[in-house]
Amino acid sequence: MRAAMAAAEVGDDVLDGDPTTRELEERVADLVGAPAALWTPSGTMANLIALMSHVGRGDAFLAPAGSHVLDDELGTAAWLAGGMPRPLEHDAGPGRVSPAAVRRAAGDPGPYFALRTKLLCLENTHNHAGGVITPPEQHAAVVAAARGAKLAVHLDGARLWHAAVALGVPPAALTVGVDTVSVCLSKGLGAPAGSLVAGSVEFVEQARRLRKMLGGGMRQSGVLAAAGLVALDNIDRLAEDHERARTLAAGLRERGWQASVPETNTVLVSVADLRGTLQRFAEAGVLVAPMGGKVRLVTHADLTDGDVKEALNRIGAVDRGGRPPSPGRSLLGRPVRATPVRPAGN
Amino acid sequence: MRAAMAAAEVGDDVLDGDPTTRELEERVADLVGAPAALWTPSGTMANLIALMSHVGRGDAFLAPAGSHVLDDELGTAAWLAGGMPRPLEHDAGPGRVSPAAVRRAAGDPGPYFALRTKLLCLENTHNHAGGVITPPEQHAAVVAAARGAKLAVHLDGARLWHAAVALGVPPAALTVGVDTVSVCLSKGLGAPAGSLVAGSVEFVEQARRLRKMLGGGMRQSGVLAAAGLVALDNIDRLAEDHERARTLAAGLRERGWQASVPETNTVLVSVADLRGTLQRFAEAGVLVAPMGGKVRLVTHADLTDGDVKEALNRIGAVDRGGRPPSPGRSLLGRPVRATPVRPAGN
Amino acid sequence: MRAAMAAAEVGDDVLDGDPTTRELEERVADLVGAPAALWTPSGTMANLIALMSHVGRGDAFLAPAGSHVLDDELGTAAWLAGGMPRPLEHDAGPGRVSPAAVRRAAGDPGPYFALRTKLLCLENTHNHAGGVITPPEQHAAVVAAARGAKLAVHLDGARLWHAAVALGVPPAALTVGVDTVSVCLSKGLGAPAGSLVAGSVEFVEQARRLRKMLGGGMRQSGVLAAAGLVALDNIDRLAEDHERARTLAAGLRERGWQASVPETNTVLVSVADLRGTLQRFAEAGVLVAPMGGKVRLVTHADLTDGDVKEALNRIGAVDRGGRPPSPGRSLLGRPVRATPVRPAGN
Amino acid sequence: MRAAMAAAEVGDDVLDGDPTTRELEERVADLVGAPAALWTPSGTMANLIALMSHVGRGDAFLAPAGSHVLDDELGTAAWLAGGMPRPLEHDAGPGRVSPAAVRRAAGDPGPYFALRTKLLCLENTHNHAGGVITPPEQHAAVVAAARGAKLAVHLDGARLWHAAVALGVPPAALTVGVDTVSVCLSKGLGAPAGSLVAGSVEFVEQARRLRKMLGGGMRQSGVLAAAGLVALDNIDRLAEDHERARTLAAGLRERGWQASVPETNTVLVSVADLRGTLQRFAEAGVLVAPMGGKVRLVTHADLTDGDVKEALNRIGAVDRGGRPPSPGRSLLGRPVRATPVRPAGN
Repeated sequence: MRAAMAAAEVGDDVLDGDPTTRELEERVADLVGAPAALWTPSGTMANLIALMSHVGRGDAFLAPAGSHVLDDELGTAAWLAGGMPRPLEHDAGPGRVSPAAVRRAAGDPGPYFALRTKLLCLENTHNHAGGVITPPEQHAAVVAAARGAKLAVHLDGARLWHAAVALGVPPAALTVGVDTVSVCLSKGLGAPAGSLVAGSVEFVEQARRLRKMLGGGMRQSGVLAAAGLVALDNIDRLAEDHERARTLAAGLRERGWQASVPETNTVLVSVADLRGTLQRFAEAGVLVAPMGGKVRLVTHADLTDGDVKEALNRIGAVDRGGRPPSPGRSLLGRPVRATPVRPAGN
Repeated sequence: MRAAMAAAEVGDDVLDGDPTTRELEERVADLVGAPAALWTPSGTMANLIALMSHVGRGDAFLAPAGSHVLDDELGTAAWLAGGMPRPLEHDAGPGRVSPAAVRRAAGDPGPYFALRTKLLCLENTHNHAGGVITPPEQHAAVVAAARGAKLAVHLDGARLWHAAVALGVPPAALTVGVDTVSVCLSKGLGAPAGSLVAGSVEFVEQARRLRKMLGGGMRQSGVLAAAGLVALDNIDRLAEDHERARTLAAGLRERGWQASVPETNTVLVSVADLRGTLQRFAEAGVLVAPMGGKVRLVTHADLTDGDVKEALNRIGAVDRGGRPPSPGRSLLGRPVRATPVRPAGN
Repeated sequence: MRAAMAAAEVGDDVLDGDPTTRELEERVADLVGAPAALWTPSGTMANLIALMSHVGRGDAFLAPAGSHVLDDELGTAAWLAGGMPRPLEHDAGPGRVSPAAVRRAAGDPGPYFALRTKLLCLENTHNHAGGVITPPEQHAAVVAAARGAKLAVHLDGARLWHAAVALGVPPAALTVGVDTVSVCLSKGLGAPAGSLVAGSVEFVEQARRLRKMLGGGMRQSGVLAAAGLVALDNIDRLAEDHERARTLAAGLRERGWQASVPETNTVLVSVADLRGTLQRFAEAGVLVAPMGGKVRLVTHADLTDGDVKEALNRIGAVDRGGRPPSPGRSLLGRPVRATPVRPAGN
Repeated sequence: MRAAMAAAEVGDDVLDGDPTTRELEERVADLVGAPAALWTPSGTMANLIALMSHVGRGDAFLAPAGSHVLDDELGTAAWLAGGMPRPLEHDAGPGRVSPAAVRRAAGDPGPYFALRTKLLCLENTHNHAGGVITPPEQHAAVVAAARGAKLAVHLDGARLWHAAVALGVPPAALTVGVDTVSVCLSKGLGAPAGSLVAGSVEFVEQARRLRKMLGGGMRQSGVLAAAGLVALDNIDRLAEDHERARTLAAGLRERGWQASVPETNTVLVSVADLRGTLQRFAEAGVLVAPMGGKVRLVTHADLTDGDVKEALNRIGAVDRGGRPPSPGRSLLGRPVRATPVRPAGN
């Protein structure tokens, strides 16, 4: 990936001329089944641009409770996009909402000037719910309900690749009927940074202007886009992460932890004492993230089967109340990514 | 009231010199137990000014689901105040949230830059829940939880007078511990327009500036403030409205309707076919409002015991599938106030 | 006026049903030659609603330097409407801009994503420039230039009545080609409060929603609208104010002050020591306002010929360095209105 | 530079752990004499973050007319930062404002609630004025005036390196007294992308949060920061660009063009027919940018003495009304950078 970055042909993307970025945008648009796409420095900006395009001053938008646009973007949906969030309960399985719930929430605004609901914002896989998948039929039904209620639909697809690989369908099968979709290159796919937001040609034209407004216009973005192109070749490899997550979860359950059965690369563990557990994991060199009152563990590209085994060993020591004799380097790098880094010599 | 308006001594309130407005502000501040208060053209502006003062860019605020600041102010909490709403379930009775729910929602924002929760916004009585009261002890407990979580507290007291009269306590008993409170002169109290927002002297100074920004600064507001002063004399009279609401609800139940037991002046009726029921009420000359999937009826100053009887008669005709022979003037004036107007000759 | 307010027939204007407000809106729409109009609590809100309708996120708007929307509305054009102000020099006389300046400023935004200019905001009469008039031909030429550059045009007509009376033309002669116009009832016309913003039916429909958002929706606004209807009968009377302003200015010049030749009801006086002069006027019971480094005096409905004579006498005493023996009540009421109030017994 | 990027040690900068980005931030903070600095994807975001920190809702800020924050950032100073811009004339030389003008503009806001001016925003070198320098004494005097008027000061130093090199002073000599300063790595210094904003430790802490809000938080930003570190080694080399700009300007004047005498790397050429001239330059393979009604040419790292000679030859052909026989590759790459690219074989 670094070699590709070093060799990237670049232009000035603010002026719309970076060839590598263009290539990446076209390839992603094609993957998600959209006419066009735009590179952004982050997924937060990709989602924000979509929200800014879909909601006017004070318009409401619906999203499953715990969605990234609700809880993890520092309130930008409200103060920057001006949108009034209406969280929906997960009434159709974890991370999923039913068509009926969408119809009800979007419904009749009453007899006089009232809050207008304009957008449904989905997330697939849904991160806070544990990387869970909304399958194509369920996606299509809820999108149809939104359409019927005259809502636009945005899909936060930061982990869309995971859902597609786990289901064995192309990513475009999971974007049916949406107006816009954002995807991420820097999480499971391993690029240093960068997301994209895709939609109609008109949307992307406007998005390009909004990106410049937000300060996301970069000149020779091709050096990052080159990494993104390499990252896209890694999509199928995510199946290994999913397999390792299942191994991890099974091992945790064997050791007496209440671990979820992962659909993709995320394991959620229910614990009685969240704060204490997080600290004991950290001391064992296993860095994890709190999420919705649980402990989240994530598998990813830099992790081997051996790492999973080692992580389970260390967690085993935690479990038994002891301490691993010498944790060496931290096995899991980042609270939000829980990135296991292979210890030297492994 | 009109006579008081016609005789009002006025000044220029934008320049902070209308004597009647000043008198009203001082009297309301005293009533709600705050150091100072500010007149505003509407309750929406009063709440908005409070929100703008309490939340910064993208800060989250908590409010019971269905609160006026969430559902009935056209999203201004988000796009004008920049606040990220987090609705709370009514886990401590209708319209009420528990201290534990506040603590949980305000809780630990996690290990890195995260959404910050800054404000709890209460509503007493809670309109959407059916004009229900949060009593002083429950209020105090939830405010203490908010304080403990370092949240500011705003109370939307558009119907605070109703709660105080129903409980037989002074309004100030229901504002204990809040930073700011808004009250309304134009609903049950009958003034043509006007609300106030109260808090510290520093808050009101800033609020005066925000009011001017929003275009709410009016010059000789004393003509409206004079009406407000008269309206404040009507607080105790609200007990009659509450009595009539109980009569109305009992009559509805006798006639087979699923009517709530009103705590103040609001009756909620559960119906199978909301849209159809609304239309049949309208045809009978009984105008009501939809609220949260139910039918809302409200009693108020212009309504007599005879009007309640007549309304029940008309509703009885609706119930039996018939039509009242000649509805004459509409008995209930306004969808949002359900204002019964005494028919001519009654 | 108070009698009219006391007798006003009212409804609920938030629900679009106050008959007196409707009558006022129709009469003002007719006066300014627009299809529709909307009552607002203040001129700041009227202008703000127009700006919010005309500019999108970050769009630029042009206005003559010193315009009310630039200097006197607490920056709401920027933070609420999101508009980027571009002040224009008065290159076509005081308060006036040339068609060429508009074309230049609106001009070619360059080869890539650039600031977009969407609106020209005029002010007639122009307050900061001294209540000066833009005559119909000059107005029409600059509007034509704006149209040619694809700009919308809003006219801040808070003092439009003055311009019309001074020119002897109907107000509608001064609104030719504009998209929206705001007018004021509470300055020269003497209503306690209230402005209107006029434009197309679609604009007013949207404006009604924006007004509610800003907290400017009032229920029985008819009590204020009734005063506004009376105020409109006073338009022709403004000629007396203009005559008195000329008398005042002539008297000031006779006494050695550098006073402007008023076109309407405003006199600007150039002084060497602004702060000192303001204080000496205040001590003499002649309250005036600073404006652009000068002293502003305004004549209005509550002022008689005798008041002007008395004001000149008091100013004469100021001029000679002395003090009037007993100023009695303040002759000029308000810093911003410089409202002379007739002393008791006059 | 690409090699440095490929070898960069990285972490997760959103979590505040990218070591290369940290190194860059510390080095830039040291260069500009600030306690701390923060990497941003663009100069627009760097300036925006500073503005958001300095101005509150509707606060005014002063900036020399034609500043980047006024004209080239799509109005974000207004709609995102909520600031009311007040452009200042260049009364102290091109691109410069006098201390007296700052004092006057910041001055007495009048007797009641008025627009508050909170910030002076300088730009050194000033791009629209032709890359002109404000020398240290003039900078210090205007900053002192701002301080005296209780204004914060932000310096847009996108081209600060040019001013420092041309004056032979360290960059920190040009930031005396400012609260915040932004600098750019991607223009003259040649990094693919990236800017920084520097100030107090508290400012940078807040800026980090604002950057995440705007979507500018990137994970392994070290790959770009590595390029930035190399770019900083190029500061002294800017002297060559300045020398070539002088050569270019002298050659243009010899050929009869009205070219400015460049202080840094920018040449402004006054022309009668801007549009036509731009087109003829483009046809000759000399791409330039329009700026304030003039033609802007810029020299930079990728340009040799031979390129300047070739550019002058081609412009000579334009001048004589002819066409260069075969322009080959475009000599000047980018409208906004006017980047001459050495033709193959040169």
